[in-house]
Amino acid sequence: MSQQEFETLIVQDHNPVLRVILNRPKLANAMNLVMVNELMAVMEKVEQENYRVLIISGGNGNFCAGGDIKDMQSAGADKKALIELNRAFGHMITKANHLPCAVICALEGAVLGGGFGLACVSDLAIAVEKTQFGLPETSLGIIPAQIAPFVVQRIGLTQTRRLALFGNRIKAQEALNLGLIHQVVENNDQLEDSVMQAIKLALKCAPQASQTTKALIHNVGEQDLDSLLDQAANNFADAVMGEGREGGAAFMQKRSPAWADVALVSEHAIKEKTS
Amino acid sequence: MSQQEFETLIVQDHNPVLRVILNRPKLANAMNLVMVNELMAVMEKVEQENYRVLIISGGNGNFCAGGDIKDMQSAGADKKALIELNRAFGHMITKANHLPCAVICALEGAVLGGGFGLACVSDLAIAVEKTQFGLPETSLGIIPAQIAPFVVQRIGLTQTRRLALFGNRIKAQEALNLGLIHQVVENNDQLEDSVMQAIKLALKCAPQASQTTKALIHNVGEQDLDSLLDQAANNFADAVMGEGREGGAAFMQKRSPAWADVALVSEHAIKEKTS
Amino acid sequence: MSQQEFETLIVQDHNPVLRVILNRPKLANAMNLVMVNELMAVMEKVEQENYRVLIISGGNGNFCAGGDIKDMQSAGADKKALIELNRAFGHMITKANHLPCAVICALEGAVLGGGFGLACVSDLAIAVEKTQFGLPETSLGIIPAQIAPFVVQRIGLTQTRRLALFGNRIKAQEALNLGLIHQVVENNDQLEDSVMQAIKLALKCAPQASQTTKALIHNVGEQDLDSLLDQAANNFADAVMGEGREGGAAFMQKRSPAWADVALVSEHAIKEKTS
Repeated sequence: MSQQEFETLIVQDHNPVLRVILNRPKLANAMNLVMVNELMAVMEKVEQENYRVLIISGGNGNFCAGGDIKDMQSAGADKKALIELNRAFGHMITKANHLPCAVICALEGAVLGGGFGLACVSDLAIAVEKTQFGLPETSLGIIPAQIAPFVVQRIGLTQTRRLALFGNRIKAQEALNLGLIHQVVENNDQLEDSVMQAIKLALKCAPQASQTTKALIHNVGEQDLDSLLDQAANNFADAVMGEGREGGAAFMQKRSPAWADVALVSEHAIKEKTS
Repeated sequence: MSQQEFETLIVQDHNPVLRVILNRPKLANAMNLVMVNELMAVMEKVEQENYRVLIISGGNGNFCAGGDIKDMQSAGADKKALIELNRAFGHMITKANHLPCAVICALEGAVLGGGFGLACVSDLAIAVEKTQFGLPETSLGIIPAQIAPFVVQRIGLTQTRRLALFGNRIKAQEALNLGLIHQVVENNDQLEDSVMQAIKLALKCAPQASQTTKALIHNVGEQDLDSLLDQAANNFADAVMGEGREGGAAFMQKRSPAWADVALVSEHAIKEKTS
Repeated sequence: MSQQEFETLIVQDHNPVLRVILNRPKLANAMNLVMVNELMAVMEKVEQENYRVLIISGGNGNFCAGGDIKDMQSAGADKKALIELNRAFGHMITKANHLPCAVICALEGAVLGGGFGLACVSDLAIAVEKTQFGLPETSLGIIPAQIAPFVVQRIGLTQTRRLALFGNRIKAQEALNLGLIHQVVENNDQLEDSVMQAIKLALKCAPQASQTTKALIHNVGEQDLDSLLDQAANNFADAVMGEGREGGAAFMQKRSPAWADVALVSEHAIKEKTS
């Protein structure tokens, strides 16, 4: 997977950390079908090669302004093509939601429509304070079709109702209050620092335990409570007899566990490549 | 539907905007069976005649102090009558929750019990800062029966537990923090200004797209994710080929879409009638 | 149930108020199997003897630092023992979640892992501002197995993702913002005062109405809306014809209802015993 494979993305590989930068700067990184397919390819790589952290950010001052209207117009009155275009985005965001690694979204500029949806499936969302969030679909005569479930799951029905039916924009502090994002920073330097700190924290957590935990919390509400807790207890026993041995030993010996050693190495690598 | 049809409501018709004012001023607009039935009639009109915005507010300094205790007492020991009285409110609030138009609650004074429940099903809730919110039922020996699901859906189990089991009152800022309301204003003038701005925003959103979106977000969690996304993609294609044509053209031509022209007209009409 | 029955708890009985203090001070009240079993015994007493308020707090500056790692290590590679150990905690927290009385958690110091989970099932959580909340499991190579559903239900998927996959600690103000707790106080004196005020509020609410309401709000989302509302209307009628008579009469006569008389008595008793 070399850089030249991508038309709409810049991919920086610092295994076990991968960073993808949405890269259609003239269009505020609006998402077309090519970008959706390329993001799918990146996420398959992340999944298959056991990356531990995926960072998604935007280039040139914006995260993502939503779906590319030109794609919709070129599909014209072909209903089947429109359905496929829209559904492809839904498959991508569903995959992003369930990625086994920690997913960090670094947000700035426009975070609208599909970009808003993508932010909603991150494990950690950090935004520069001037970032603009919104769901402009209904003001354009269309609907937030594939992102609706992820928005409702993220910020609840109450806040989704308002954003979708009144089309108002909000900034980072309000997005934090609504639980859409986790952290507000003043500028892009702080954004990079916060991403770096988050990578270090994520790498201190055991890879298998993190993966199991992410799957577990996604399952809450999807199955009967007692069966969920039975399965969780089984996973717990496996964890204690697996990574938990190293974790417990490191805790007793007041040292870092083996899986965390990668943290400093990665930081160096990432700082060199992104600065 | 002329004004004289209503005993407990004042109805102001600025089609496509309808405003209903709860009007039992001596009882802090406590809700009796007559008011429940009259609200049902208003909501049927809103639904059948495709109004685009419904505003619910209270007269004389209060929104609504809850269910009218006199109604309960006159039902006395007639269990069937008590069940019907209570269930009628539940049917009304369920209907309010799913109205196809945008529903705005303008809140002041007492927002208690059933009034609290009604605020919970609005698409936008704005409150004057001194507004008092609470669930006093258990302190009166009764229960928040019909509103419980809407309160839990609005503010979550955690906050509902506290308000229902400790009977504490909260003001608008805390209601905002809990996600019960969307906006706090200082006084009634600001409340009216904010309602007016909200109407304008709602009318900028396409009528059919707004209606489809509201139904979609209500369906989240009610059906399988994949089937929801399939159906949403179908709705998306219809929207692109319907209102989306005007929306896309207006966007390209940097003009307002046809459905938004009504905004200024309505504003004039509403300001004249309510001031 | 005399004090000497307990190895890991201090129990203060001011019927209808019961206070339990987690008491393994050298281990920051880490929860072992003995404590889990003793908490179960206390909760059975609370349930069977119709206590109206249960307070859970920690001794010596901490609430609870989570599961006791020694328990896990002594189970060693015995998978069955590990599963049983873990599942016992899940049974206890499930019971705590559904206790018929009002449950108050008074939080200070470490509120980690299992302690965090226990805080998540309270009806009212009050914390001193320096309290440290976190889910350190994945950083130890294990998983937040039995608490995951209660954490997700309490603070939502978004916040759980971050705390579980990045292992960051938060203080009381952020816990308040996330909806994990309801109230922040400056120090332990204020904590005790707030607990006392909360007891008084809880005792002003009718015992049967509170119990029915708690069961009702727990049922939201667990059954079909219409059948829930039908059942709630039936419960409402019973309440009006039961405690509601005294509640309505007291309201009209501007006096405290009979069930609230206990409040002042209890306050005296509790203040004497705890100060």
